[in-house]
Formats: sequence, C-alpha cells, structure tokens
Amino acid sequence: MSTFTFTELSPISFLERAATVYANRYAIIDGDFTVTYSEMYARALRMAGALENIGLRRGGRVCVLAPNTHMLLEAHYGVPLAGGVVVALDTRLPAAELGYIIRHCGASVVLVDFRYRALLGHALGAMLSPAVMDSEDLESLLEWSPQTRVEVVDERSPLSISYTSGTTGNPKGAIYQHRGAYLQSLAMAFRAKLDTSSRYLWTLPIFHANGWCFPWAVTAAGGLHHCLDKVNPTEIWMALRKNGISHMCTEPRVLAMLADAPDAVSLSSPVRIFVGGAPPWSLVSRVSELGFDVQHLYGLTETFGPVAICEIPEEWSTLPREEWEKRLVRQGIPKHRRESDSGR
Amino acid sequence: MSTFTFTELSPISFLERAATVYANRYAIIDGDFTVTYSEMYARALRMAGALENIGLRRGGRVCVLAPNTHMLLEAHYGVPLAGGVVVALDTRLPAAELGYIIRHCGASVVLVDFRYRALLGHALGAMLSPAVMDSEDLESLLEWSPQTRVEVVDERSPLSISYTSGTTGNPKGAIYQHRGAYLQSLAMAFRAKLDTSSRYLWTLPIFHANGWCFPWAVTAAGGLHHCLDKVNPTEIWMALRKNGISHMCTEPRVLAMLADAPDAVSLSSPVRIFVGGAPPWSLVSRVSELGFDVQHLYGLTETFGPVAICEIPEEWSTLPREEWEKRLVRQGIPKHRRESDSGR
Repeated sequence: MSTFTFTELSPISFLERAATVYANRYAIIDGDFTVTYSEMYARALRMAGALENIGLRRGGRVCVLAPNTHMLLEAHYGVPLAGGVVVALDTRLPAAELGYIIRHCGASVVLVDFRYRALLGHALGAMLSPAVMDSEDLESLLEWSPQTRVEVVDERSPLSISYTSGTTGNPKGAIYQHRGAYLQSLAMAFRAKLDTSSRYLWTLPIFHANGWCFPWAVTAAGGLHHCLDKVNPTEIWMALRKNGISHMCTEPRVLAMLADAPDAVSLSSPVRIFVGGAPPWSLVSRVSELGFDVQHLYGLTETFGPVAICEIPEEWSTLPREEWEKRLVRQGIPKHRRESDSGR
Repeated sequence: MSTFTFTELSPISFLERAATVYANRYAIIDGDFTVTYSEMYARALRMAGALENIGLRRGGRVCVLAPNTHMLLEAHYGVPLAGGVVVALDTRLPAAELGYIIRHCGASVVLVDFRYRALLGHALGAMLSPAVMDSEDLESLLEWSPQTRVEVVDERSPLSISYTSGTTGNPKGAIYQHRGAYLQSLAMAFRAKLDTSSRYLWTLPIFHANGWCFPWAVTAAGGLHHCLDKVNPTEIWMALRKNGISHMCTEPRVLAMLADAPDAVSLSSPVRIFVGGAPPWSLVSRVSELGFDVQHLYGLTETFGPVAICEIPEEWSTLPREEWEKRLVRQGIPKHRRESDSGR
C-alpha cells in the first residue's frame, strides 16, 4: 500500500483555479476598474513580486488601510502569494489605534489607499520600520514587477490577522490560518449558493473578519466581486437596480438604511442577503417585502465570521407571514433540542 | 500567542450535526422504511455497537454486500462510528471476485442484504474468518445494541475502500480517508446546490466510488436520501413523478433508458442530474427537453468520484440550442487554455 498524498488547503488555490477555469470571466468591478480572473491572478502574482522587492519575507505582516477597493481584495491573494500575512485595517479607527495595530502585528509593509495617506501618516507618527506603498504607486509597480509565488507549505500557517475593535481595551488580533479560511470560504459559497452567475456586492467591510471570507468564497465560485466607491444607501440601491446584484452581506443598521432610503424599490429579481447581528423581525419583514431573501447568521471575528446560520426549511413557507418572519431572525438552535420540537 | 486548535475532518460529523439541526427531517426513505436524522444517527451509533460486539476493532474492514438500501447508506456512518472501514461490494460481481475482495481487504465482518445471502455463501466458500450478519439480523440487533462512538483521531486515516472492477486483472482497492471524503462531500453539496429541500434519488450504485460521496453530501445539506427497491426506468420515473425528486447522479446508459422509457414524461419541475461517463449530446438534448438539468462530470474511483465538472456559464443560455447542448457534454478544460478562447 502506497502512502496518501495531500495538498495543503489554502483559499489562494481558488484564484489559481479561477484563472484557468473562469479565465475570461469578470472577477472584480470597482468603478472604472475591471479585471478578469486571469488578469486578477497575474496581478496578484505581480503584487507578490512587488512586496518581495520591498522586503516582505515569509510570515511577514502586510497591513492594508483601504475601504472595500480592488486593492484590498487583491491583497487577500497578493500578500499570501508572497508568503505574507494580510492585516486589513479598520478605516474608521483613530490614528492611535491604527498605530497600535501596525506595531502590534509587526508590519513589514503597509499598503494604503491614496485617500488615507494622511490618516496613515498620523498613525505611523515617528515609526520607521514598515515600508509604505500607496495604491497609486502600487498600480505602477504592477505593470512591471516580477511574478512571485511562495508555496503554502503548511495549511496551519497564518494567512491573515483580523483585529477586533470597539471594545474597551486595545484591539485584539485573531490569526486566521489557510486551512480554516479555505473551509469557511467553501461553507459560505455552499450556503450562499454562489456560482458563476453570482454578482456579490461589497457592502460588508472587508476589514471585518476578512469580509466573512467572501473575498475567497466568491472567487471559489467564479462569481463577480462588485465594489462600491461609497457604501451608502443611494450607491447600494443604484447597484441593486442596475448591476444585477445577486448576493450581499450586511448588518441590521445598513439593512434599516436600505429599507428607509428614498431610492428603495421592489427588486426585479430576488437578492440573497446574509445579515449578521440581531435584526428585529419587523425590519426583516420590510426588506423581505422589497424582494430581499434574508438569511440570518451569527459569528465572531474569532470564528472566521459566521458560525451559525438560520437554515430555512421549506415548510416555513406555509406559515402565516408574521410567524415566518419571526423564525427568520432565529439564531441557531440549542445543542440538546427537545425531540418533540417539530419547529423544523 | 496561543496555539491553534483543530478538529479532524470527517464526513461522520455531517450526521452528528444533522441529528441536531435537522433532527425531525426525513433522512432516508426506502420503501416502507423511513427514518429522521435523529433516528438515523441513533441507529448508526447502535450499528457501531453491534459491530463492536461481534469483534470489529479500530481499523477493521466491514464489507457490505447490498444494493442501494438503507443498510448500505447507514453503514457509511455505522462502520466508521465503530472505528471501522466500510467496503461496499459490487452486487453484480461473480462470487469468485467477491471472495477475492473480502480476502484482500481482510474483512472482519460482512453485512449482507438478506436477498444476497446465497451469493455471499458462494463467495465465502470455505473462508472462516469474517463474521457474517444479514440485514434482518442486523435490524433486530439495532433494537437493543449499545451505542458506540469511536473518535476519529486522524483525519488521514482510512474511512472506506472502494474496489474497481471490470478490468482484466483482479479488483484494485482505493482507500478513501476521512479528510478527502469530507472535502469531496462538501464539493458535491456545493456544486449540486443541495439543501434541506433536496430529495436525492439513489440510482447511482453506492458501491461505485462510495456513490461519489453523496451518502455524506446529502446528509451534510440535510436533504433526503430516496432509495429504490429496483433501479429500472419504471421505478425511476415513478419516483420522479410522485416523490418530488430534485437531484440524481447517473451514467449515460441509464440516461438513455430513461429517455426511451414508455413512462417518460415532461417533468413538472426541473431535476438536476449529474452524469458521468461520456453522454452523446443527442442524448443530453433529449433528456433536457424532458426537463432534466444535465451537468456533466468526470472522475475516477481513485478520486472519490467526480474530479472535473462542466461548469455552465449563464452566457451559454443565449446560444443556439444545438451549440448549447454540444457544450454541455464537454469534459473539463485544458490546464493551459488559450487567452483568446472566449468560450466561457
């Protein structure tokens, strides 16, 4: 009997496959910027080369200070392709906290959206160590940098660090390894029923738990990443009406803004929307009426995002509307449920 | 920094989860036999207890000689829950080859459908070693056997052995480990878009590459396993018409029989059908007209079943019908495809 052979699990493999299987499909639309999957992979390999050229080594940390732009999405591949660990920074944090995170993770490089250079300057203060590259300089480098690809030799090695914030103490970093991110990405693609016709709207900040692993999940399915210049109800409704969006993830606050927006109209085809937090059922009711197919999730930064999902059995569709909506906001089920509960 | 903790990947975990999350949903329908997921799990734990009682130890092989019955499905959980390795035997093999496999894998136990006792007798001949239990005796034992659950301590340990046949030499066994079967099951559930409303019709023999991992994939999604007493066009069409079947896997030969059957009618709702082998496009055309949503796969016993899939991009729907059908029978795409090929 010969021994088994194994491949290390890594979500980077999704882009490698997409570059072959979905080569000429659009991967990212971000305003005027568009790339196909073969272009996205080539750019990620050159981003890896550019990062290596400015000193990134295996295991080195690369902070990214940017809203949901193509640079931040691409860094989820380009950084690990250089053997690095991607750290997406919350653009809403004060400079002092950003500085704390950059120091705490021991960043070798900081990639910064050109609109956030001033904030980064305040965050870095007198710090000397990390090399800084803004999105405009990076774009020039991507034209001629060599392609680099550092093998993932251990699926249990770090892929990213996601910092929590909004607590009373200093931000805490949760390390995501390649294996866990691969499995969570597949779980999200499976549960969201993503496929090549999916158009995923980036409203959930990618710096929150690496966007619940959707930077990798959408790619695994060969779907389209649709970025927004500004994440506000007007922009979201514009994309929903004009760009054939099929999926998005969000939180109750954004859901409420969408429902209240003057632009709100009934959707021409249903949009599957994953909602974290604790949406009140009255809100679920309102957005369901607009044509959103709401599914409730619960998770943590420490769990790669969603860890519980409200699975909606077909029988619920026969329930009175109010009862149905109340069930939609359930969060998981108890581990030792009663046998007699025929709720699902 | 604390160390990561990991859970061993095993498709057995799908049933453990289903027993909680889908407790009262039907898991298997096999003629008059029906079980919910909580019942299926309880029975699998007792099957493990019964197997342990007759001498199965960790790593021991359990052959199962049965058509696509609930016993064979349940053995895909009960055997590994006892720490054993399940070996599904091809019921169409001559006795001599069955005997060879039973000896070659070193079976501790053989479970046999009561209708195949005579065949097994011929296969065993003068062999003394494996304990034999038929499906009727097993059913009685399941009423009082203790529940047993042996932990999977290494995801790379054997879960099943799938023997190839129909070649010129002796059958060869491919060992499936827990990790690979877990990943393939999730891939199948994702690609087939299985969910709790799925009703999977068991036409593909489970002894072929462990039914392409669908004994585990359907359970992962909380779908229904629908078994047939006899797999022939009349029985299949009956199930398609009356039982709300949503998914099935098959081969071109069965597909042709379905298309030619006098019972063939247009389906009231589309049935997603995964077809292996090499179906001619004219056949795909005929069954598509009946309402089957055909997707072509290619794989091997050695690859847990399907390893390539014809992904159908939405643009194909605008092609002339004949061109569209010809693309449906494609088998994968070349690794180094031409950039200029805008075929997908």
